[in-house]
Amino acid sequence: METQVSSEKLLVDAALKQWQTGVDRANKLFGGASHEVLEREVAPGKNRLIYLLGHLLAVSDTMYATLRLGERLHPEYDAMFLKSSDRAVTPIASAEELKAAWVVVHERLQVEMAKLSAAEWLERHASVSEEDFVKEPHRNRFAILLGRTNHLSYHLGQVVLTK
Amino acid sequence: METQVSSEKLLVDAALKQWQTGVDRANKLFGGASHEVLEREVAPGKNRLIYLLGHLLAVSDTMYATLRLGERLHPEYDAMFLKSSDRAVTPIASAEELKAAWVVVHERLQVEMAKLSAAEWLERHASVSEEDFVKEPHRNRFAILLGRTNHLSYHLGQVVLTK
Repeated sequence: METQVSSEKLLVDAALKQWQTGVDRANKLFGGASHEVLEREVAPGKNRLIYLLGHLLAVSDTMYATLRLGERLHPEYDAMFLKSSDRAVTPIASAEELKAAWVVVHERLQVEMAKLSAAEWLERHASVSEEDFVKEPHRNRFAILLGRTNHLSYHLGQVVLTK
Repeated sequence: METQVSSEKLLVDAALKQWQTGVDRANKLFGGASHEVLEREVAPGKNRLIYLLGHLLAVSDTMYATLRLGERLHPEYDAMFLKSSDRAVTPIASAEELKAAWVVVHERLQVEMAKLSAAEWLERHASVSEEDFVKEPHRNRFAILLGRTNHLSYHLGQVVLTK
């Protein structure tokens, strides 16, 4: 017997697939990058790859909180990679540490996000109050997923310039 | 009487909003850019802004065909901005021409995309046959919308490096 997949689920699946495509692309770009490559700037005077690795990792880690999926794994990276620009904080976490954390954060995120139903994706995200959400139903988890996927693409477009 | 908006519509609306956010951001970045600024490369030896303007415009124009929304407006840009890399074709269209076309292409796209129901977003896109689509229902219009939005973000991340 064939199972009819709901339209809602197909829409959510498309967005999850885009997210994972971005994560997989980042895995390849950062995973194989040597220390020397990670020190490269995406353009003269702009962010180094190691900073973007940490920045994207820290943003992904905040998604546990924003999507209300449970405890974050690495709030300690916020000071280095979200609240500070590149080179403002020294030393930063090592490439080995960031690459190892990257794998764990994204694998767990994939598992947790896959558990959400379409109705749950349309629930409020953590940065909007229940009162405001009644008036602004577009401030839902799904909007966060799409926004973070685009944020990842935005920086991957920069990372590839070092190739 | 309050109207209950369907979950499907909320999911589609979130994706359309992300697309438009990207288009609006591009409007600001390219719209105010002088001839001199448009000649800048996003990084040494990489694409010039004028090329990325044409490239993003050409990709958006292909969306009429890929999303099966009607006739394309500017197939003539494909040779300059999709099939050729920057500086491979000279002369290219002028900044004035590209900026004017940009406005028309994106305004009309916004109107046409707003007409599609969630069920229509889940119909096949033009690059997949009806036979293949039965086996691969994820190759739908919605996936194209998400993919093109990420493509836009990817290049906007490069454009901002010239600031």
